[in-house]
Amino acid sequence: VITTDDLRFLRSRLEFYEDLSDSEMRDLEKAVMKASYPRGATLRSKRTECLGVLLVRSGGLRVYILSEDGREVTLYRLGPGEVCVLSASCILNSITFDVHIDADQDSEIYQINIGTFDLLMKNNLRVENFTLRNALEKFSDVMWAMEQILFMRFDKRLAVFLLDESARVGAAEVKLTHEEIAKYLGSAREVVSRMLKAFQAEGILEQSRGIIRILDKNKLKGLL
Amino acid sequence: VITTDDLRFLRSRLEFYEDLSDSEMRDLEKAVMKASYPRGATLRSKRTECLGVLLVRSGGLRVYILSEDGREVTLYRLGPGEVCVLSASCILNSITFDVHIDADQDSEIYQINIGTFDLLMKNNLRVENFTLRNALEKFSDVMWAMEQILFMRFDKRLAVFLLDESARVGAAEVKLTHEEIAKYLGSAREVVSRMLKAFQAEGILEQSRGIIRILDKNKLKGLL
Repeated sequence: VITTDDLRFLRSRLEFYEDLSDSEMRDLEKAVMKASYPRGATLRSKRTECLGVLLVRSGGLRVYILSEDGREVTLYRLGPGEVCVLSASCILNSITFDVHIDADQDSEIYQINIGTFDLLMKNNLRVENFTLRNALEKFSDVMWAMEQILFMRFDKRLAVFLLDESARVGAAEVKLTHEEIAKYLGSAREVVSRMLKAFQAEGILEQSRGIIRILDKNKLKGLL
Repeated sequence: VITTDDLRFLRSRLEFYEDLSDSEMRDLEKAVMKASYPRGATLRSKRTECLGVLLVRSGGLRVYILSEDGREVTLYRLGPGEVCVLSASCILNSITFDVHIDADQDSEIYQINIGTFDLLMKNNLRVENFTLRNALEKFSDVMWAMEQILFMRFDKRLAVFLLDESARVGAAEVKLTHEEIAKYLGSAREVVSRMLKAFQAEGILEQSRGIIRILDKNKLKGLL
């Protein structure tokens, strides 16, 4: 059930809200559902149907592409308050590719029904432009990821990732497996393991029981 | 000087034209200039100012990114009648990356002044809508290029490129240097040379005087 608090959150995050007519607002509010996903759950794969527009209430989502042989490349991540419209690509003619979406933490997600959103978009140019602008911001994120993958040396990319991740959790410890880090960086587990081992040998970090502890942040920053 | 014929071409390619007011139309038509670029000319680099919206009259443009050490990755190409709005990224807040644009043939290009276009976009939601949708289509092109580069084996990518190029010029001969092919595929010249040599050894093609002649199209298709 959607509460007043839920609606307040939606209103604050969907910029087009104030441009909706009263009946459009009612339609939208009836089309929202709230779902919980445990860490690692798949919200969208190539097989799932069109999901609708997503809004993260808590937790986070990871959006990625997947090769035929199972390699993953992370395009971007979405945190609380962020809206995902690529999950509604079936109603966006300009989008001809498919992404996968996982919960990368335990997450609460609002989902706006695709049929209702499609109608809103067709009848209200401000809703359509909001949707297009949101998708276009992701284009920028993807270009950033692409430049990282194609142009940046892997030691540098891993250093950036460890510093970001440690800043995000507010601790010197990163609790991710080599496999998980490889997925975020669009690389292979072996490559991550080798590089972490090299960092360990240089005294930059230590690894024990699946935890990476950053010992020398300045040295890590020196790689950038 | 812009002729009646030029204006007819612009009208047929800018879908929002019929939604403009008379004064908006006059402003737009005053803001168009036509320029010729020889093959290889740079229209836009990280150093150039905001170019405005481009429309290809004849020839073609290549849009690419460039690494600090000079590696290029082609994102997409634009042919006659196609519109480029990424060249106007300075007026699109959602776009935070910079692309390079070259003429990949002798080309005639219409350029719409950025200040005028910015005003049109701010005052007319349909102009904004057209611009966002155009940029978003390029997002799809870039995702395609990215999946090719990250996921497809290089022999397959080179085969696809040679078949496409030969279809495009309507001949079994591809008149591009190894260096140029490497740029289109986001690879290194050495890698292209090595693979072409391998194809030659298999009787798929022959190379002489800078021309690649496809001898066995079916064998090339067999790589896909």
